[in-house]
Amino acid sequence: MPTQFDPPSGTRDFLAAEVEARERAFAVIRSVFSRYGFEPLQTPAFERLDVLLGKYGEEGDKLIFKILRRGEHEASGEADLALRYDMTVPLARVAAAYGSQLPTPYKRYAMGPVWRADRPGRGRFREFVQCDLDTLGTTSVLADAEVICAVHDTLAGLGVPDFRFLLNSRHVLAGLLEAFGVPGDLGPGVLITLDKLDKMSAADVAGELTGRGLASGTAADLVAAMTAPDAEERIRAALKLSEEGSAGLDEVDEVLSLVTPQLPAGRIAFTPRLVRGLSYYTGPIWEVVADGVPGSISSGGRYDQLIGQLGGPDVPGTGGSLGIERILLLLPDGPAGRAGRLDAAVTILGQELQPRSFALAAAAREAGLRASVYLGSSGKLGRQLKWASDQGARWALIYGHQEDEAGLVTVRDMDSGEQASVPVAELPGYLAQCAARAG
Amino acid sequence: MPTQFDPPSGTRDFLAAEVEARERAFAVIRSVFSRYGFEPLQTPAFERLDVLLGKYGEEGDKLIFKILRRGEHEASGEADLALRYDMTVPLARVAAAYGSQLPTPYKRYAMGPVWRADRPGRGRFREFVQCDLDTLGTTSVLADAEVICAVHDTLAGLGVPDFRFLLNSRHVLAGLLEAFGVPGDLGPGVLITLDKLDKMSAADVAGELTGRGLASGTAADLVAAMTAPDAEERIRAALKLSEEGSAGLDEVDEVLSLVTPQLPAGRIAFTPRLVRGLSYYTGPIWEVVADGVPGSISSGGRYDQLIGQLGGPDVPGTGGSLGIERILLLLPDGPAGRAGRLDAAVTILGQELQPRSFALAAAAREAGLRASVYLGSSGKLGRQLKWASDQGARWALIYGHQEDEAGLVTVRDMDSGEQASVPVAELPGYLAQCAARAG
Repeated sequence: MPTQFDPPSGTRDFLAAEVEARERAFAVIRSVFSRYGFEPLQTPAFERLDVLLGKYGEEGDKLIFKILRRGEHEASGEADLALRYDMTVPLARVAAAYGSQLPTPYKRYAMGPVWRADRPGRGRFREFVQCDLDTLGTTSVLADAEVICAVHDTLAGLGVPDFRFLLNSRHVLAGLLEAFGVPGDLGPGVLITLDKLDKMSAADVAGELTGRGLASGTAADLVAAMTAPDAEERIRAALKLSEEGSAGLDEVDEVLSLVTPQLPAGRIAFTPRLVRGLSYYTGPIWEVVADGVPGSISSGGRYDQLIGQLGGPDVPGTGGSLGIERILLLLPDGPAGRAGRLDAAVTILGQELQPRSFALAAAAREAGLRASVYLGSSGKLGRQLKWASDQGARWALIYGHQEDEAGLVTVRDMDSGEQASVPVAELPGYLAQCAARAG
Repeated sequence: MPTQFDPPSGTRDFLAAEVEARERAFAVIRSVFSRYGFEPLQTPAFERLDVLLGKYGEEGDKLIFKILRRGEHEASGEADLALRYDMTVPLARVAAAYGSQLPTPYKRYAMGPVWRADRPGRGRFREFVQCDLDTLGTTSVLADAEVICAVHDTLAGLGVPDFRFLLNSRHVLAGLLEAFGVPGDLGPGVLITLDKLDKMSAADVAGELTGRGLASGTAADLVAAMTAPDAEERIRAALKLSEEGSAGLDEVDEVLSLVTPQLPAGRIAFTPRLVRGLSYYTGPIWEVVADGVPGSISSGGRYDQLIGQLGGPDVPGTGGSLGIERILLLLPDGPAGRAGRLDAAVTILGQELQPRSFALAAAAREAGLRASVYLGSSGKLGRQLKWASDQGARWALIYGHQEDEAGLVTVRDMDSGEQASVPVAELPGYLAQCAARAG
């Protein structure tokens, strides 16, 4: 049950172990993208409202978090700013603002939270991390291939256990409609229905197609071609009847010729039924599916008009997006998080010994360890060792009056219970050795 | 002049070099805090409005960015959420929400953007990074000392050229007022004026004190004691006349006894005039000043009632905050940013050579390099080498028909212009060696 202390609906607090697991994943992503020559871009959490409104369709506009005007204007109840809804509109703005300062082509990635006032649900949040990589300013299919390979290397680097790319092209879809004689006005609806071939039976899909007004013979032909055992050959043959279809096929084959040698076998396949909902794609389109996950974990494609439509300069672009929150759920648990765990826990056994104990913690940190003194109120060694154990500390550094007189510190291995007496001056070296042995 | 493509007033876009410089600094901070056993906490960008309102005083409330209700409620013009204004109120909420799941004491750091609708100005932003570390659940002065040392190590680790800690205690201030017979109702105003002794002459401060209604003899005594060559001794002697003053002095001396041995000489000093504006401090208070920077670059203190006042559990606390944006301005330039720069730039000298060139870039990445193929439209080697040079690439990998026939790739050192012919299969090893030599 939510309480007044829970974070707002659809948002999350991340405590230490979660922060560290997420940051580990983000570091992998940054490292792969950087190796491909993509550079980071960070834009503000909010944009001017007019920059965002009207860019995401009517439904999208409703999901924008709007920020009330301030001061004397607050009473107007009007908004002038809005939280970032995606990373693409800010990219269009940046491309317009910094045009000549940016390299050509501009290969950038952006990773950070976006906000959508969606109904929260399992795996669906109102604040979630979005991770995009895009190349603006080139029509080369090499750029499309680069994005696909970078996404592949990222997913592999993260340890996503099993995934594959579905590849298609907008031109293939247009050619398909042309080759099978689908009337122009029915095209978009027909494509949406065809994309359900992975979830619905061939007969049901054909039924839905005729329901949309497609001649039953055409519907039957289309579904038969796409579900036959030799579907790919039949589709390829049909596409060659259409000029745009042939061009789309060439585009797909060109991407495959670049990408396939770089990926493990079977990781990418031409998938003529793949539509991708977003109407702004203009060339190759792709998505990544993983076993046991409905929908896709990553997707993208070429969008040669979008940046201009969004208010940016008229430059071609291609890119992809990682569904980070879904992907994080797929990952095997990392090294049992030592998030916030201490390596060395130092006792405080008497007021007058505080400065020496405090200095011992500093010495342990100098040896590269996470170290802290006991901050509680008990003067009892047993209680303090219990604290050290609760902290997951590897070593307790015990410093009482006996040790003080002898110039020693007792180093207790919290796993084995073994203790060693170490001269205070030698502590950093001793701990560094212990740490190296423990790995 | 701002254009429609600029980010909203008071916010910034960070391009590659800035992102990398900032992230480098953030990594240092996280690493030091972690070494002290502070664990990360991340809370949402927005909180429920009622969680924030009334926590920052009337002036603070006006600076909160409020988020309009959504859907049918949008027309009401009311807000239900608000952007995070600091990291302390979210900490209080988290302490209330996860109490027993958190370690005791709870040592956490939080680093991320906060938003304030302040008038933007030089070095003052509406979106800026706040970085706090706090220890909840202990009254031990060791915790205060730990925060101070962690802030010191962070500033030193970042390379802040020159800085020092000013240390005081709320009890010292109360004792001072008592020892000099300042009437209770004048106390707060007197302290605010005394804190100006670093900026105003002694006579002006005394004048302002009498202006506040303090007897001129008392004002003269106070100012004389605090500005005399032997000011510290005189203040110490005066404080011993007050019970609270003596306790404050003990507190300050205890912090000094813990911290001073860990810091370079002269880095921290008892500073009786230091007030810190925030009324919620209850024990030791401190700030860090740096040459050439007005105000402080970091500050903190003990606040044993604050978390309860903010709606959290009734736990003692102590902590500090780094003025990240100011600190970043102080830092020497890092290693000349190779942000987004390529190590290896690969030519595309013919459509049919694309897959081989694409594979060469992959091989370079396998050798740990940042690598990309040429994505432009020119087929001319000269243009492509110009691009490689613009990218700051160290090496161009040239792969034309001659190379293709011979199974070689020409590796051109972009600094020296020297070229080597390398068998394709040996490229990763060759580049790894080059990279190791180049460092």
